[in-house]
Amino acid sequence: MAGNSFGQIFKITTFGESHGDGVGVVIDGCPSEIPLSPKDFVYDMARRRPGKHRLESPRKEKDQVNILSGVFQDKTTGTPITLFIQNRDVDSRPYDVLQDVFRPGHADFSYFKKYGHFDYRGGGRYSARETAARVAAGVVAGKILEPLGIGVVAYTLELGGIRAAHEDLKAIGENILCCPDPAAAKLMEEAVSRAKKDGDSLGGIAEIKVTGCPPGLGEPVFDKLDAELAKALMSVGAVKGVEIGAGFEAARLRGSENNDPIDPQGFRSNNAGGILGGISNGDEIVVRVAMKPIPSILLKQDTVDRKGRSAKLEFAGRSDISAIPRVIPILEAMVKVVLVDHILRSRAVT
Amino acid sequence: MAGNSFGQIFKITTFGESHGDGVGVVIDGCPSEIPLSPKDFVYDMARRRPGKHRLESPRKEKDQVNILSGVFQDKTTGTPITLFIQNRDVDSRPYDVLQDVFRPGHADFSYFKKYGHFDYRGGGRYSARETAARVAAGVVAGKILEPLGIGVVAYTLELGGIRAAHEDLKAIGENILCCPDPAAAKLMEEAVSRAKKDGDSLGGIAEIKVTGCPPGLGEPVFDKLDAELAKALMSVGAVKGVEIGAGFEAARLRGSENNDPIDPQGFRSNNAGGILGGISNGDEIVVRVAMKPIPSILLKQDTVDRKGRSAKLEFAGRSDISAIPRVIPILEAMVKVVLVDHILRSRAVT
Amino acid sequence: MAGNSFGQIFKITTFGESHGDGVGVVIDGCPSEIPLSPKDFVYDMARRRPGKHRLESPRKEKDQVNILSGVFQDKTTGTPITLFIQNRDVDSRPYDVLQDVFRPGHADFSYFKKYGHFDYRGGGRYSARETAARVAAGVVAGKILEPLGIGVVAYTLELGGIRAAHEDLKAIGENILCCPDPAAAKLMEEAVSRAKKDGDSLGGIAEIKVTGCPPGLGEPVFDKLDAELAKALMSVGAVKGVEIGAGFEAARLRGSENNDPIDPQGFRSNNAGGILGGISNGDEIVVRVAMKPIPSILLKQDTVDRKGRSAKLEFAGRSDISAIPRVIPILEAMVKVVLVDHILRSRAVT
Amino acid sequence: MAGNSFGQIFKITTFGESHGDGVGVVIDGCPSEIPLSPKDFVYDMARRRPGKHRLESPRKEKDQVNILSGVFQDKTTGTPITLFIQNRDVDSRPYDVLQDVFRPGHADFSYFKKYGHFDYRGGGRYSARETAARVAAGVVAGKILEPLGIGVVAYTLELGGIRAAHEDLKAIGENILCCPDPAAAKLMEEAVSRAKKDGDSLGGIAEIKVTGCPPGLGEPVFDKLDAELAKALMSVGAVKGVEIGAGFEAARLRGSENNDPIDPQGFRSNNAGGILGGISNGDEIVVRVAMKPIPSILLKQDTVDRKGRSAKLEFAGRSDISAIPRVIPILEAMVKVVLVDHILRSRAVT
Repeated sequence: MAGNSFGQIFKITTFGESHGDGVGVVIDGCPSEIPLSPKDFVYDMARRRPGKHRLESPRKEKDQVNILSGVFQDKTTGTPITLFIQNRDVDSRPYDVLQDVFRPGHADFSYFKKYGHFDYRGGGRYSARETAARVAAGVVAGKILEPLGIGVVAYTLELGGIRAAHEDLKAIGENILCCPDPAAAKLMEEAVSRAKKDGDSLGGIAEIKVTGCPPGLGEPVFDKLDAELAKALMSVGAVKGVEIGAGFEAARLRGSENNDPIDPQGFRSNNAGGILGGISNGDEIVVRVAMKPIPSILLKQDTVDRKGRSAKLEFAGRSDISAIPRVIPILEAMVKVVLVDHILRSRAVT
Repeated sequence: MAGNSFGQIFKITTFGESHGDGVGVVIDGCPSEIPLSPKDFVYDMARRRPGKHRLESPRKEKDQVNILSGVFQDKTTGTPITLFIQNRDVDSRPYDVLQDVFRPGHADFSYFKKYGHFDYRGGGRYSARETAARVAAGVVAGKILEPLGIGVVAYTLELGGIRAAHEDLKAIGENILCCPDPAAAKLMEEAVSRAKKDGDSLGGIAEIKVTGCPPGLGEPVFDKLDAELAKALMSVGAVKGVEIGAGFEAARLRGSENNDPIDPQGFRSNNAGGILGGISNGDEIVVRVAMKPIPSILLKQDTVDRKGRSAKLEFAGRSDISAIPRVIPILEAMVKVVLVDHILRSRAVT
Repeated sequence: MAGNSFGQIFKITTFGESHGDGVGVVIDGCPSEIPLSPKDFVYDMARRRPGKHRLESPRKEKDQVNILSGVFQDKTTGTPITLFIQNRDVDSRPYDVLQDVFRPGHADFSYFKKYGHFDYRGGGRYSARETAARVAAGVVAGKILEPLGIGVVAYTLELGGIRAAHEDLKAIGENILCCPDPAAAKLMEEAVSRAKKDGDSLGGIAEIKVTGCPPGLGEPVFDKLDAELAKALMSVGAVKGVEIGAGFEAARLRGSENNDPIDPQGFRSNNAGGILGGISNGDEIVVRVAMKPIPSILLKQDTVDRKGRSAKLEFAGRSDISAIPRVIPILEAMVKVVLVDHILRSRAVT
Repeated sequence: MAGNSFGQIFKITTFGESHGDGVGVVIDGCPSEIPLSPKDFVYDMARRRPGKHRLESPRKEKDQVNILSGVFQDKTTGTPITLFIQNRDVDSRPYDVLQDVFRPGHADFSYFKKYGHFDYRGGGRYSARETAARVAAGVVAGKILEPLGIGVVAYTLELGGIRAAHEDLKAIGENILCCPDPAAAKLMEEAVSRAKKDGDSLGGIAEIKVTGCPPGLGEPVFDKLDAELAKALMSVGAVKGVEIGAGFEAARLRGSENNDPIDPQGFRSNNAGGILGGISNGDEIVVRVAMKPIPSILLKQDTVDRKGRSAKLEFAGRSDISAIPRVIPILEAMVKVVLVDHILRSRAVT
C-alpha cells in the first residue's frame, strides 16, 4: 500500500535510505532452483555505480550485493530472497543545508508536505541510491529470462539534444554513454562536458528493446503489458514520459500508416512496439523514456525554506550531469521484473 | 491477478463483453455516505456514447447505468457498488469474419495467442465497450473529488496533426471535438471528414489537467502518482504514450531551464507537471497522452488467418475515425480513480 | 481492501444486499476453456435455499444464477465471470423495527458503529443472503477441481449437542440435515423441532473433508493452506471456531501420540488433517467448524436502541433454527475456492 | 503471492532461514513519526528466546534487532522499516540426517513435495526461527496501539491437559509458563518435567485478550476481524485450532443462551468474543488457539526417506517440550499486526 512493492507474483519490495545502513530488496515469489550467487550482480551493479571509469574496474566494486536469504547451495529455494547493499562513504554533512531549504526539481518539497518528518540526508528514501536495489532485483529476474531466450537491452537514443542516427547494438558497450551510434556518442560527450563547465545538467531519451518475447504476455484491461511497463519506468526518478512503439508519433499517423500488416512470416512493421491490446504479439518490444535533466545543478536557484520564506540555493552535492547512462541498467531491471512477473502470471492461469 | 482490477483502496473491477449481456464495474472501498443516484451518470455516459449528436440528447440516453448494489436511500453504504450497463443493438454478425482473420492493429492476434478460446464478437472483452464501465466508476470517484475542490478536465490538444494554439477551457464543451481552441477545432473537423472519406482514421493527443490537487498525494518508489497515472492512462485502448509536465520536451532542456523555481507564492513554472519525486506538489497536474489512429479502417489490409495463411481484410464494422473525442471522459475517469485511490491511501497512514 | 474479495489468483468479489436488486460475484482469474452453464449451479443453489423441501424440487428453483459475463459458447474465456442472483420476495417491512433497535447476536450494532449509514433491511450486506454468491463461486471452483480428481464434502457432525457416531458419507444426501449418521440425524431433527417450539435456535459442528488433494498446496509462513482455510471458513457468518485434523484435541496429546508415523504407503494416522507446515501432504484434509446458534429467535430479548436506551426486542423475521444444514454448501464453496486459488498459485512458480 | 507477506496497509514481509545469515522483516505502510529504537524490542525478543532463564537476563540478549531502514532520529519516517536479527550459534550438522529422512509431524515431507530443492537445515524457512521476525514486527505494531489505549495480552490457559482455573493477569509474568493461575502453573511445570524425562512433548491452549479495542474494526464479508485473526494465528507453526469468544462451546448453546444481551452500559455477556458480523463491537476481544505438541521428540519414530523407503528416526536436535510459553509473544505479535492493519484500513475509508 505504501508503494514500496512492485509485481504480483514476482514481487519485489525495496527498502533503505541513501545515508542509512544501506539499501536492499526482498523478492518474494521467485521460483526455486534458479542458480544465483553474488558474482551474478557484479556487472550490472558496476554499470549503475557512479564514477567515470566504472566500466573498467569491476574489481574495485563497492556496491557489493549480499544475499541475506532465499538461496541455498547457490540455488534459489522458493523462499524470499533478500539482497542488501551497504552504504559506504556517506558523509551527510553537505546535506545539512536541506534541513532548511527545498531544492527546486527535487522531491524535498513534496515529501515535506506529505510526511512532515523525513530523512533529508541525500534525499533519503527518494535518493537515486534506492535504484541499486532495483538493479539487484533485475539481475535475479534476468536469471529467469535468460534460459527462456528473452533479452532486454537499453541504450541512449538522445542526450542533450543529440540523437543517435542509427542503432548498432554492439557499439553500446563500447562508449561510456551507452549509445548505439559511436559518432553521436562523441557529440554527446562534448555536450556533457559543456554542461558540466556551465554548472548545469542535461536530459535525454533512452530506448529499451526486448527480444525473444513470446506472444501472450500481459493481461487485458488494466494490467496490460504496456501499462505495467509505463508504470515501472515512470517510477524511475527522472522519467517524465514513456512511449511504446511509434508512441507520440503515432498520434500524427493515419490508421493505414500505423497499422502493422501481418504476413505469414510475422508483422511487416512494428508501430505497435510488440504489444497489441496490452498483450505481447511476439514481435520485438520497443519502449522509449524521456529523462528530465538532473535537478542538482551548481547554478544559484530561487527557492523557499521550510517556513515558506524566499531563499537562494547554491548546493554542491555530488551529482551526475545526466541520469544517462547510469539509468540504463535500472531501466533494464524494471523491464525484466515486469516481464518475469507476467510470465509467472501467465503460467498461473493457462 | 488477471488484470481486471485497478486501485488499492478504491478498487474497481470491470467485467463484461461488447456482445454479451452488458458491461459493468464493482467498486470496493468507496466510503459510505457519498450521495449517488442514476442521474449522476447521464452526462459522462453521454459524452462517451457513439453518435454525432450525443451531446444534444441525453434524454435518449441508451447507456443507462443501473446501480445493482452498494447504494441505499441515494447514499453509498460502504459496501461494494455494482454498476451495470446493458448491451443493446448488438448485432454480432458483422464480426463473424473475425472468427477467421486477424484485424491489423487490433488485439485479435495477441488474444488468440494468449487464450486460444475467446469471444471474438466486436472484440469481446478488449472492445472499447469495456470503457463504459470505467466512465461509470469515474463518476463515483468524481463525487468524492468534487467536495474536496479537485477538478479533472481532459481535452483535445492535437488531432490529425492539427494542434490547438491556445487553451480556452470554456471552449471545450462548445465543439464536438472537445478542443479548447475553436479555430483549431474547425480544422480538426475537416481533417476528420477527409479521413472518413478516405476510409481511413486519425490519431491525436489529449491533455488532462487536475486543479485543486493538494500536495502529498502519491507514494514514493513504485506507486508514484505519475507512475500510477501512466499505468491508468496507458491501459486505455489506443494510448501509445504518456508524458507528465514538460514530458519528452524535458529531455531537451537543461536543468537550469527545467527546474521550477519556488516562490513564497508557489512554483514559478510547471515543467514538473505538478509532481515531484512521484508526489503531488500542490501545483496543477498536467498529463498528455498520445492516441494512435483507430485500427478499424475501410481500406483493404494485408493480414493472416488463424492458420497463419495470407489473407485480405475489408471490414465494415461501425467505428469512429478517431478515439478522440469519445476517449475524453474515459481519460478523466481514470485520472479521477487514481486520485481518489491515493487520497484514501494517504488517509490510511497519516 | 474493503474486504469483499477473496483469493489471490482465483479472486472472487461478492456484492449485493439482501433487500436490494440481488447478490452476485465477479470471479477474476478463472482459467479459460472451463465448461460452464447455468444448469451447473442448480444443485448447490438448491441446497443453500431456505425451505424444508428444497432438495425435492430443483425445478422450482428460485435462486437462479445468471451468467452476466466471462462465458462464451458455454466455456469460460479467461475474462471476469460475473454471476448474479436476483432477489425476489423481499418484503422488507418486517425489518423496519431494526431502524431503531439492535438485534443481540447480530451485526446491527457493530455495523452502525462502523458506518453510521447502512442498509438495515434484512441485515443488508451482512445478511446470509450474501452467501448465495459464494455458493455460485464455489460451483465454478468445483468445475476446476473435478477433472483433477479433488473432492470436497461437508456434513453435519453435531447439532444441538447430538453428535454423529459414525460417518457414512452416502447417508449425507439421504437426510435433510446432511448428517452421515442416520440415527443421529433423527435425534437432531427432534432437537430442531423442540427448539422451534421454544422459539429458540441451535448451534452445531460441521466437518469438511477434501479427498484427492495433491501434496504441495499452500504457501509457507502466512498463506499456509490451513491459515487460508481458517480465514475462509471463519468468514462465514455464524462460524466461531475452526480446527484442522486433531484440532483442539491435539492440545491434550503428547508428541508421540500426535505425530503421524510415515509408511511407504503413506501416513499411518491423520492428526495433521492433511496439512504439515501449512502445506498439503497428500493425505485427506479434515477441517471442523463450530457454528453458533442462529441469533434470530422469537423469545423476547434485552437490547438498546440507536440512542443507547434500553429496549425489548421481539422480532419475527423469517429464520432458520440452525445455520446447519444450509451452511453446508457454503462451507464446501469456501474450501473449493481456497483450493483452486492455491492450485493456480502453485502453477505460477513451479 | 508466495505467502511471505501479511496485512493490507500495515504490511509485513518476513524473510530468512534458521541457518542462513539471519531472519528479518520489512514493514511497509507504518505511519511516520512513531518513536522507535532498538531497545523497544528487548523485552518481547527475550520472551521468545529459547532457554529456561530467558526472562531473568535480558542483558545477555542474543536476538538483537537491527533497524536497517525506515527510522531516522528515533522516529519512523513512513518508509519501509527493515528489522534484521542475525543468526548465531547455528551448528547445522545435527540436521544433516534430514537430508535423507522426513521427521514425522514436521513440514519436511510437504516442503520436499512442493519445492524439491530446499534448505533442510533446522527446518530452513519453516523453522520457528522465522517467528523472531514476527515478534519484531509486533513490537512496531504495539507502538501504534499503545497510545490508542489498546492492550494485547496472551497467556497459557491449558498445558499438558492441565487447565488454569482462574485468570489473574498479574500472575502471568510471575511464572515461567505465563499462566494466570499460579497453582496450575506449578502442575504444568511438573507435566513438562515428566514429558521431558519421557523424551516426549506436550500440547496446550493459549488465550489472547484485547482490551480497549474500539468498535468498528474489521471489514464485512471476507476480511472480517475474526477471519483475519484466525488466519494470522493459524499461520503460527503449531496452531491446529482457533476459536473466538464461546468458540466450539457455542455449538452446544441455544440462541437464547449464546446471544449477548445489550444494556445501555454495554454487553451483559461476551459469548461473541468482542466481534459481531466480523466487526469489533467495543467489548473485549477473546481468542483461543490450540497448540499441538512439538513434533520433535527423542523417542524413536517410524518414517520414510526421500526415496520412500521405511526408516527409523531418532533425532536429537535442540527443542522445547511445548510451544508454550515461547509462542506467547508470537501470538500477541500477530494479533497486534492484525489490529493495526485494520485500524489503518478503517482510517482509509471513513
